[in-house]
Amino acid sequence: MNVVSTISEIRSVVKQLQLKEQKVAFVPTMGALHGGHLSLIQLAKKVADHIVVSIYVNPEQFGPAEDFGSYPRTLERDLEFCIQENVGTVFTPSDEVMYGNEEKFFRIEIDVLNEHLDGGSRPGYFQGIALVVNKLFNIVQPDVAVFGQKDYQQFQVIQEMVNEFNHDLELIMAPIERAEDGLALSSRNAYLSETEKAIAPLLFKKMQESVAEIHKGLLKPESLLSRKQKDLEAKGFKNDYFNVYSMDRLQPVSKLSKKETYILAAAAYLGKTRLIDNIIFEC
Amino acid sequence: MNVVSTISEIRSVVKQLQLKEQKVAFVPTMGALHGGHLSLIQLAKKVADHIVVSIYVNPEQFGPAEDFGSYPRTLERDLEFCIQENVGTVFTPSDEVMYGNEEKFFRIEIDVLNEHLDGGSRPGYFQGIALVVNKLFNIVQPDVAVFGQKDYQQFQVIQEMVNEFNHDLELIMAPIERAEDGLALSSRNAYLSETEKAIAPLLFKKMQESVAEIHKGLLKPESLLSRKQKDLEAKGFKNDYFNVYSMDRLQPVSKLSKKETYILAAAAYLGKTRLIDNIIFEC
Repeated sequence: MNVVSTISEIRSVVKQLQLKEQKVAFVPTMGALHGGHLSLIQLAKKVADHIVVSIYVNPEQFGPAEDFGSYPRTLERDLEFCIQENVGTVFTPSDEVMYGNEEKFFRIEIDVLNEHLDGGSRPGYFQGIALVVNKLFNIVQPDVAVFGQKDYQQFQVIQEMVNEFNHDLELIMAPIERAEDGLALSSRNAYLSETEKAIAPLLFKKMQESVAEIHKGLLKPESLLSRKQKDLEAKGFKNDYFNVYSMDRLQPVSKLSKKETYILAAAAYLGKTRLIDNIIFEC
Repeated sequence: MNVVSTISEIRSVVKQLQLKEQKVAFVPTMGALHGGHLSLIQLAKKVADHIVVSIYVNPEQFGPAEDFGSYPRTLERDLEFCIQENVGTVFTPSDEVMYGNEEKFFRIEIDVLNEHLDGGSRPGYFQGIALVVNKLFNIVQPDVAVFGQKDYQQFQVIQEMVNEFNHDLELIMAPIERAEDGLALSSRNAYLSETEKAIAPLLFKKMQESVAEIHKGLLKPESLLSRKQKDLEAKGFKNDYFNVYSMDRLQPVSKLSKKETYILAAAAYLGKTRLIDNIIFEC
């Protein structure tokens, strides 16, 4: 496995492969790799000959009050993980490589898509993601890039950026990986105490119950969704959002239409840990 | 010479060349090709094996009161011009190919660099240029791209975008081409009446006089520059700007420093025609 940290090295690796007509899939991560990343890598392997994983905790996507400083950094374990999974190349750039020290003049602004969900709660979050992913795509120049459904809004924002910026690659979305108790896998689960771990799966359970009710024909789910949020609060969650959104523009939907596909997305705090999850369903 | 108008065609042409280790230079234009473009193409030939010229009048960089509708469109003559100059491929995308009809969610915003000069006078101009050039770079994926010094602010904005977005290409600046009377070549010169054509070279003449005075040791050129503008007004010009700016951040400079390099840049209207010009000089 190659481990490289400069732009010229990663470009040289990818260009050599592409000259040999090898297909390169890219899995961008912030490290602290877990079973969710494993499923991204395994999906990547199905469509490409060589997997590039990047490990970079992007400061631009953290707000001043967020957990940039304490975000789990487990590089040695991550590299071991990548070796086990036959990853071809790991790209571990420094902040200096990614952003340098010069004054910056360019910003990427996003309308509509980031108004709600995490975009609504975390100002600047998706601009920071677009900034770094646009850079990473131009640095790595892969044929395919894989992102997880757990961050569906991120997927949709990046898909739209690929369309509007004409990035020459195909995006693939990997399904959400869950623990046996239903909790969506996340690097931030490492923050949970034992007590919180026991309660955490309730978030997904309440989402499943909501979708089940909707499947029974409930097309105006507002009061259902606020009941479920109260259930979560009673168990110790602090809700951020818990709502049904359109798949393309990520706008809240109060009246559902039969046969349409929607996403039920939720974010909630357990103590200091922010959990997110979603279910894509046909009405 | 290839003439292609779809993204998949131009990508296929460029990829085939790069697989054969041919170096591809890109000269983006809005058509109405003239001697200025010729010098861009000739410079491109010195550094690359194959030249791609794009011809696309980008609606996103014209303001509502500007000349998008009347901008000269001379495709047949342009293609003949490119054949004469041994251009390898001409890319002539439609608006549909470049922007499609779907709702757009992404904007590229620029700070500082576009506050003055054309950026100050033409709101949205450089955002529109950044938008289309970012797309064109990702579509064509050249090894080198050539822009002219006449639009120095454009060059500087794009150079900064290449740095911040990590576009994998080298930018080259071609010097300003001038008619024998000193007038900088421009597609918009076609708008000038015979009387205006006779007056137009005065803009460059007044700029040369200003730089000559500065070279004699005048380090606070404010009153000199306003005198030169009055001279131009007296001859029928309507001045937009006529000032000295820093090379990197394009900020006005009122007190010059010895041995520093600056740009004297000007824009002025003759009738309805907007002329721009600049001189880069060491103090």
